[in-house]
Amino acid sequence: MLRGSIYHRSESEYAYLYTSNKAHIRIRTGRNDVSQVLLMYGDPYTFNTKDWTNEPLEMELLLSTENHDYWFIEVEPKFKRLQYGFHLIGKDGEEVFYGDKGVFPYQDEFIKLPNLYFKIPYFHDIDRFKAPSWVRDTVWYQIFPERFCNGDKKNDPKEVLPWNSKLPSWNDFFGGDIAGIISKLDYLHDLGVNGLYLCPIFIAPSNHKYDTTNYFEIDPHFGDKELFRKFIEVAHEKGFKIMLDAVFNHIGDDSPQWKDVLAHGSKSRYADWFHINEFPVNYSETEDFEYANDITYDTFAFTSHMPKLNTANEEVQDYLLDIAKYWVKEFNIDAWRLDVANEIDHHFWKKFHEELCSLKEDFYILGEVWNSAQPWLGGDEFHGSMNYAYTEIIEQYFAQKQLSSEKFISLLNEQLMTHRQQTNAVMMNMMDSHDTPRITTVCKEDIELMHTIMAFMFMQPGSPCIYYGTEIAMKGGPDPDCRRCMDWSTDFENNQTFNFMRQLVHFRKENAEVLSNGKMEWRIFSNGDIKLTRQLGKKRISVLFNKDKKIVNGPNYTPILAGKQWAVFSE
Amino acid sequence: MLRGSIYHRSESEYAYLYTSNKAHIRIRTGRNDVSQVLLMYGDPYTFNTKDWTNEPLEMELLLSTENHDYWFIEVEPKFKRLQYGFHLIGKDGEEVFYGDKGVFPYQDEFIKLPNLYFKIPYFHDIDRFKAPSWVRDTVWYQIFPERFCNGDKKNDPKEVLPWNSKLPSWNDFFGGDIAGIISKLDYLHDLGVNGLYLCPIFIAPSNHKYDTTNYFEIDPHFGDKELFRKFIEVAHEKGFKIMLDAVFNHIGDDSPQWKDVLAHGSKSRYADWFHINEFPVNYSETEDFEYANDITYDTFAFTSHMPKLNTANEEVQDYLLDIAKYWVKEFNIDAWRLDVANEIDHHFWKKFHEELCSLKEDFYILGEVWNSAQPWLGGDEFHGSMNYAYTEIIEQYFAQKQLSSEKFISLLNEQLMTHRQQTNAVMMNMMDSHDTPRITTVCKEDIELMHTIMAFMFMQPGSPCIYYGTEIAMKGGPDPDCRRCMDWSTDFENNQTFNFMRQLVHFRKENAEVLSNGKMEWRIFSNGDIKLTRQLGKKRISVLFNKDKKIVNGPNYTPILAGKQWAVFSE
Repeated sequence: MLRGSIYHRSESEYAYLYTSNKAHIRIRTGRNDVSQVLLMYGDPYTFNTKDWTNEPLEMELLLSTENHDYWFIEVEPKFKRLQYGFHLIGKDGEEVFYGDKGVFPYQDEFIKLPNLYFKIPYFHDIDRFKAPSWVRDTVWYQIFPERFCNGDKKNDPKEVLPWNSKLPSWNDFFGGDIAGIISKLDYLHDLGVNGLYLCPIFIAPSNHKYDTTNYFEIDPHFGDKELFRKFIEVAHEKGFKIMLDAVFNHIGDDSPQWKDVLAHGSKSRYADWFHINEFPVNYSETEDFEYANDITYDTFAFTSHMPKLNTANEEVQDYLLDIAKYWVKEFNIDAWRLDVANEIDHHFWKKFHEELCSLKEDFYILGEVWNSAQPWLGGDEFHGSMNYAYTEIIEQYFAQKQLSSEKFISLLNEQLMTHRQQTNAVMMNMMDSHDTPRITTVCKEDIELMHTIMAFMFMQPGSPCIYYGTEIAMKGGPDPDCRRCMDWSTDFENNQTFNFMRQLVHFRKENAEVLSNGKMEWRIFSNGDIKLTRQLGKKRISVLFNKDKKIVNGPNYTPILAGKQWAVFSE
Repeated sequence: MLRGSIYHRSESEYAYLYTSNKAHIRIRTGRNDVSQVLLMYGDPYTFNTKDWTNEPLEMELLLSTENHDYWFIEVEPKFKRLQYGFHLIGKDGEEVFYGDKGVFPYQDEFIKLPNLYFKIPYFHDIDRFKAPSWVRDTVWYQIFPERFCNGDKKNDPKEVLPWNSKLPSWNDFFGGDIAGIISKLDYLHDLGVNGLYLCPIFIAPSNHKYDTTNYFEIDPHFGDKELFRKFIEVAHEKGFKIMLDAVFNHIGDDSPQWKDVLAHGSKSRYADWFHINEFPVNYSETEDFEYANDITYDTFAFTSHMPKLNTANEEVQDYLLDIAKYWVKEFNIDAWRLDVANEIDHHFWKKFHEELCSLKEDFYILGEVWNSAQPWLGGDEFHGSMNYAYTEIIEQYFAQKQLSSEKFISLLNEQLMTHRQQTNAVMMNMMDSHDTPRITTVCKEDIELMHTIMAFMFMQPGSPCIYYGTEIAMKGGPDPDCRRCMDWSTDFENNQTFNFMRQLVHFRKENAEVLSNGKMEWRIFSNGDIKLTRQLGKKRISVLFNKDKKIVNGPNYTPILAGKQWAVFSE
């Protein structure tokens, strides 16, 4: 047996409460190495007595990766306490016991030692990862406000350019605003999305507004609070949830706090609001606006214009938490997306979670994390993250064609096994954003391929998100090109992608339960074709991908949705 | 290469801040499978630019277990941010890259993808595991107050028995008290211990006081607050740290809160203070005082007399936190030992940590956890745990002779690799306690063996703890026999164990730095003999164990301490 491949970790994604009474237990073994895994379990206080009589339970092979098999079982112990270990039977016939101190021979002298077992000492619902249930049923739509729609010419910046008159440069303004978003709510409703994620809307000099000057005011080029209140009300009435973007890692160098530091140096009352390594604060100008590596204070990346906030300072914490709560209390927003969330301390996010979820019970917290977000997804920080770690794999497979089908599925499953089941269900999956090239461009404008990717992404656990314009296959390379003006001149009714995306969105919403929480079954055909089935109870939805661009060996079912390379059907 | 054995986990014991500027990185590989591990690292924001020029660093093979090798390196990046991956070279010549998405061929197309790397996004000192430095220099002494010393006959319980007149039964009282402890401070000082851990001293009907009636008062049979204050003052003057025992998982059924529930049922204002599954609260009396499995409320184990507190209730939280803070604020205690700590929710312990460490910066929090305490030792709950998970292995090897030398060292190393280095340094190691048979009895009164075990335990990372009486090799089986009266009739000057333990304690304190934080080097000789060397800078202390009871193949050094089977020496 590949003993070194066996892994389990107490109170983690390997052992957690799924509901208040039910625990999920997973274990990892070497790929194709173990034929059977039994969960030996009972109450910690009746171990080795007549009452430790539970028959071992056979675990189910849940998902596999290149190097590992993951096994799973759900248990519901009577006294809300669980002591457990694993009886593994190798394909080579070897039997071992695996528990809190590692691997032992499956022999009485070991399996009778209570301290070789793992424990969930008590089922504490307060520690359980709880995600707001509405997120699973949500299809998000990401709006970059300056580029979505100009609904009010009166609030345009002085230097405004005619809508879509050119490809965007770093400092262009096109006049998009909140009035524009309001005017397109019916459009969005028709598309079917029901969650709107808005990039920052607070006062900031740039077009992207990630360099906040004042977190308590709407940028005047976007509108004002009265208009924003109207927006929220109308949007809520139409069934949209609203997520704003909180840029708490850093602040703009135009902010009063930073200006005070510039003026008063170490004497500034804001001196400890930042991570300043040496006074006076300073750096050498370089050709690259966003790169100076001799800055005497910590910044976002090497951008001197975005000094990093010291979130260990209690005043800063209070300041940021007040902002976060203000927009919930006064405007009833439903979610915060947290910018550069992984560079802010856990201590702060725990406070944030506590305070925001106390304020609004079903509030959703989404962190921007590009690689594994596991450290933030224990249940007391974010509910989900922008799932680049997952969706990049999809892009690598379908668009870059860098991966074999086996490696592709291995990588996806590895990501899924990084998180609890309820976490996977509320991750945000997106193929593009204001920070990436647009998926249509990534697909080299192969629309069929782009549809394949979107269909595949919509079949995954997690809430899908459409970046504005992706529903009409808008093009764009890396930032700032991916922030072009939404093309409202599109003939939507006859736009192939729009019609496809509308179907896909509605399909996802109608099947939210099975697609967010259903079991995953993969099949790889000998020619590399892939079939994914999602199953919940008796409901089974499958998607088949054919690499050779025609449905061959297809199912005897009528597809619900289909492209040249793929079909979704119900079994 | 045994790819399935490779493991690393972001922001865990595999990647953590050791100091505010230095990170520790570990990786696990298959045992004897990899010849070299290189850390590829740089700043996340200069990846793939000219500034990502750090030469890969060769990692050091730190410790090995039966199935794994653990590699280690310390890094100090300039901008307090770290992106890193691993270049592994197998003994079979295979080279792979291992990062955030798993194992890839060591090829440019993969190693140039930034999102395949792990990250420490920013070095947040506020999230760092910080343990009070005094703990590493502490040798603890655990006192069961009712049985240590009767210093004041006037406060004896009515049913008091003459000191040491019999072996203890469940409900015996012998009159031990705080006056007794005060009277023995010079004795303890002479022994050399400098931390006193007192089992519960608050009002409770039993002799063990784990069934608290009133947490705000000293049990009158032990003394009163005035005396306790005197005790703390005198003890602090003599250089002792004082740790009390907090029983927060459950409360006695004699407590006013529980009595109120008994009286008023679901209408009681304390109804939500407990986990009541059905009113009226009830259970069937059984022969066993501590066992009733039809209790309608959750309890400690199956003990109807210890109803479990609902620590998710804010009133309960405040009540318990007030208690915890009261004894710090009013009496300046230095540490809390937390009874049945793993059965209380993490949410509560995080609050506890926050509030207690704000109150007293170098406060120490020790949890009672019998199996792996990893889930509580992330830095924001406990600092250390009663290290049964480690010390039981020592007992299994030396006393039960159940393990080979290889398995023994494997198990110890596995435990060490479960925690951060700074955590290992402040764990509490003990070979016996009020909850276990005494080590002398476990050793079947083989005093030489008992000394061997104690010497070995004192050489480990973590603060050693002596259970009262163990310094004179007191005997006792399982609870209540392990709670015999301290035998003050002992001829201490001529007591072999006392003299040995005194030497050992002083040796441990003199070498606290190397013994708590020094590197560990194991050597197993062909006959099963073991040598452990602890090293810090140029200081090297070794201990050699000879199974055949004589020092053979011994070192050419004069032992500092030695028994028939072992010797400690400086290299």
